[in-house]
Amino acid sequence: MNNKENIINCLDKGFVRLIDHMGDDAAIVQAARVSYGDGTKSVNEDKGLIRYLMRNKHTSPFEMVEFKFHVKLPIFIARQWIRHRTANVNEYSGRYSEMKDEFYVPNIENIKAQSKNNKQGRSNEEFSEDLAQNFLKSLEGNQSFLYNEYRNYLDQNVAREIARINLPLSNYTEWYWKIDLHNLFHFLRLRLDKHAQFEIRVYAEAICELIKPIVPFAYQAFEDYEINSVNLSAEEIRTLKNIIDLNNLDYSNSKLSKRELEELEIKIDKIKKIIE
Amino acid sequence: MNNKENIINCLDKGFVRLIDHMGDDAAIVQAARVSYGDGTKSVNEDKGLIRYLMRNKHTSPFEMVEFKFHVKLPIFIARQWIRHRTANVNEYSGRYSEMKDEFYVPNIENIKAQSKNNKQGRSNEEFSEDLAQNFLKSLEGNQSFLYNEYRNYLDQNVAREIARINLPLSNYTEWYWKIDLHNLFHFLRLRLDKHAQFEIRVYAEAICELIKPIVPFAYQAFEDYEINSVNLSAEEIRTLKNIIDLNNLDYSNSKLSKRELEELEIKIDKIKKIIE
Amino acid sequence: MNNKENIINCLDKGFVRLIDHMGDDAAIVQAARVSYGDGTKSVNEDKGLIRYLMRNKHTSPFEMVEFKFHVKLPIFIARQWIRHRTANVNEYSGRYSEMKDEFYVPNIENIKAQSKNNKQGRSNEEFSEDLAQNFLKSLEGNQSFLYNEYRNYLDQNVAREIARINLPLSNYTEWYWKIDLHNLFHFLRLRLDKHAQFEIRVYAEAICELIKPIVPFAYQAFEDYEINSVNLSAEEIRTLKNIIDLNNLDYSNSKLSKRELEELEIKIDKIKKIIE
Amino acid sequence: MNNKENIINCLDKGFVRLIDHMGDDAAIVQAARVSYGDGTKSVNEDKGLIRYLMRNKHTSPFEMVEFKFHVKLPIFIARQWIRHRTANVNEYSGRYSEMKDEFYVPNIENIKAQSKNNKQGRSNEEFSEDLAQNFLKSLEGNQSFLYNEYRNYLDQNVAREIARINLPLSNYTEWYWKIDLHNLFHFLRLRLDKHAQFEIRVYAEAICELIKPIVPFAYQAFEDYEINSVNLSAEEIRTLKNIIDLNNLDYSNSKLSKRELEELEIKIDKIKKIIE
Repeated sequence: MNNKENIINCLDKGFVRLIDHMGDDAAIVQAARVSYGDGTKSVNEDKGLIRYLMRNKHTSPFEMVEFKFHVKLPIFIARQWIRHRTANVNEYSGRYSEMKDEFYVPNIENIKAQSKNNKQGRSNEEFSEDLAQNFLKSLEGNQSFLYNEYRNYLDQNVAREIARINLPLSNYTEWYWKIDLHNLFHFLRLRLDKHAQFEIRVYAEAICELIKPIVPFAYQAFEDYEINSVNLSAEEIRTLKNIIDLNNLDYSNSKLSKRELEELEIKIDKIKKIIE
Repeated sequence: MNNKENIINCLDKGFVRLIDHMGDDAAIVQAARVSYGDGTKSVNEDKGLIRYLMRNKHTSPFEMVEFKFHVKLPIFIARQWIRHRTANVNEYSGRYSEMKDEFYVPNIENIKAQSKNNKQGRSNEEFSEDLAQNFLKSLEGNQSFLYNEYRNYLDQNVAREIARINLPLSNYTEWYWKIDLHNLFHFLRLRLDKHAQFEIRVYAEAICELIKPIVPFAYQAFEDYEINSVNLSAEEIRTLKNIIDLNNLDYSNSKLSKRELEELEIKIDKIKKIIE
Repeated sequence: MNNKENIINCLDKGFVRLIDHMGDDAAIVQAARVSYGDGTKSVNEDKGLIRYLMRNKHTSPFEMVEFKFHVKLPIFIARQWIRHRTANVNEYSGRYSEMKDEFYVPNIENIKAQSKNNKQGRSNEEFSEDLAQNFLKSLEGNQSFLYNEYRNYLDQNVAREIARINLPLSNYTEWYWKIDLHNLFHFLRLRLDKHAQFEIRVYAEAICELIKPIVPFAYQAFEDYEINSVNLSAEEIRTLKNIIDLNNLDYSNSKLSKRELEELEIKIDKIKKIIE
Repeated sequence: MNNKENIINCLDKGFVRLIDHMGDDAAIVQAARVSYGDGTKSVNEDKGLIRYLMRNKHTSPFEMVEFKFHVKLPIFIARQWIRHRTANVNEYSGRYSEMKDEFYVPNIENIKAQSKNNKQGRSNEEFSEDLAQNFLKSLEGNQSFLYNEYRNYLDQNVAREIARINLPLSNYTEWYWKIDLHNLFHFLRLRLDKHAQFEIRVYAEAICELIKPIVPFAYQAFEDYEINSVNLSAEEIRTLKNIIDLNNLDYSNSKLSKRELEELEIKIDKIKKIIE
């Protein structure tokens, strides 16, 4: 990250730049306290409150923080990204302006075979380097050919909005994107996931780096309770029945707070009822 | 439930009535299959697909089912309910029309003391019957007094929009409420929770009864994966370290499908990494 | 329109199909009447109420009607369409499934020059038929070439999600799209406009045909008060000062209802104040 | 307004306080220019661009500005306000905390009779001062009585969430409210209107004062094109036929810009077609 610019390069020609934000951890606490009719407290209590809100899905205080990003990204990623509806967008327009001669070309190590067990993703296995080289070569050749065609149409005065329809999905576009922290966490939860397409994960990870310094407690809570948690259905718990020995509980080395231990006991009770 | 009318009475004078719906389990499947480029399959595969979507939070197909309810409810509950923004509402208006002489009076067993450990709720302990009787008596007396005052103002031709400002939050209102199934599940998740106020839980439970026959697979999946699941943070798992013996895994009696067992193994790996 | 199928073909290979709807004109009236505390009235009064709601932008009752469409459309149109956020979408996925060999090829009369005074649109003037022929020829040639490349990559087992990135924006996709009538009218207002790209206007017009028989009063009110109205700013009215003679008012031949005439008088007063 | 505090008192005990904002007129321009692929221009061109965007309902750049307010308001106003769904809210909770002894008492000049021609509003005519005095006296007496009852219930340890249900709608609550400028303009359009209840208009007017210094060009454009414009339906134009003489057009004294004059001519053409 270039700290001065708050910009992180993504893929071969893209970037995410944090251009503005409203509020930080303190704004989350302030909004929550209006509900509780409480005033200012210590930093430690603020942290505890933020963690409590995250854990118990009291999401509205996180909506009080807003971020605005400038993003440059390939169109096929823009199409996945835009599905997150609770956000504001202004995108570069291929009707008003000429599309630029910039296309996404993957690194060779990201050319992979179709995954066998994941219908929507890439395999982790090695892919023939020869095939990958050929793929990249034809990819680049075609991008350059299509951009030339586009330029020719424009030179013949074909309207921009129709000349651009054969540009490929690898063409870069850019936009301003504004979103609140609650909805950004939702975006990140889905787009950091290993089932998300690699190319959008790169952007999600960049966004994490940009927001961490602004909402450190909220981000940590998001990691602890959302990213690094495990959700077990009743049937999964029953399946795990004989590896769980509830008689052996020992909280002496736990780093959980008093309130979290109380919450854990409620979960233990729920598990007990399921496996009995 | 009165099956003919699709209506369930709630509290002393309220109700939820399902007045229309668009789509059912089949509509969820149909929408999901357009993503996968697949056609019709067997009922069993439909059920499996719905459960897969729910488990993996592929929420958009659930948005393809829409419900419309007619609800009569006290204003203080309407104020909690309306916080769910992704829904459509038309409410009875105290500016256009006279408010009716109908007020919520709790059953005596629902008059409870303030909870000691739950700042937002009622205690489960017995409450003095005498005090509860007195409370109810003054509640009813005041409701009737305030409605008389309101009627008097109206008789003196005070504008409705200003005459009604001293009516109490226990006054009943009614509205039409339209919401898609994904957002309805979100509403239910929060309002079925034992931390939700008793009076709104009654409505949430009524809604469950009304929608179950229409989306039986989706509702069952919601119960299994959302209501009856347990979410454990990394630190909670570490705290539970010495009651888990991962060497003893045995899937032979499990009712999980093959795909679910694969998903469980990924969770087991995650747990392993946390407690090692 | 094929009435049996509720389907209208759009462009060369696309379509809009109305697959379900919830509610009609009566549902709008029913929702409005809950606000007014009123019951059923005559058809004529229903029509008047719907027109009153539209004219005065009481939009929430229109949200009580919901439509679900199946749409096949080129990706560059899908990118404009998806900007309407208050809707539900399930789209065919190029990660899960192979994209099909279907691309948009405009009719020759829709190949136009860039407009001189409209930066985002096509000129209305004649375009050289030779140039248009050449454009179409290269468009089709390139589409077919790019699809072959795509198929080759897939045959070499390149993952679908990466193989598709050089497919052009003219490639057809399809989706299920669900939206309420208020938000649909907003979509139509923008996409029927002559500044909208021709290719999306075709879909907007098809949607009008499909919904008209279901909500005839609401649709007529939309046309009368939204599409065929003229909005004049204060400065525009001042500019028109000497073509307006307010002393000459004569309502005797007007088809406006009594209520509308009262509303018109309020507007006349506003105009008077501006031009005095 | 207390400039230091950015706070404006509303009604007898309420207020609106602007506590934070993200972006200003420049942010609107910046977002619009990413669409047009343009860079920075002169202040005058910025103003022209903002006015163009407002006039032509290119609303998304206005979404790039965000405001956060702290508001204290009576519950019956909060119930109207919350209907604006595209906003973020954290409200004081009567389950967590004791409601305060603060109730709205109107000024005597705001006690009016029911309007005869406006079913939802107050008459403009004089109201008997005696009746108004009596109304206010009983209002205040009842507020004070009900708050005492509430305090008694709490002293007897009745749970807060149930003790508060007979508090009247005139009780003050408070919240944090965050909204983008586009949606704020929509709120203002509806709540500045003379059909809006007087008590919410007071808050809408306060918000105008608070945002004007931050987005002066956007606010001016909103006033010119939204508040002070007149919308005429085709039938209204036909009704006005004989007061319009289109042969007499003279733009020589107009303050409209060249682009606006071109837009006006398009409207004139539309009017011509309607009245011919």
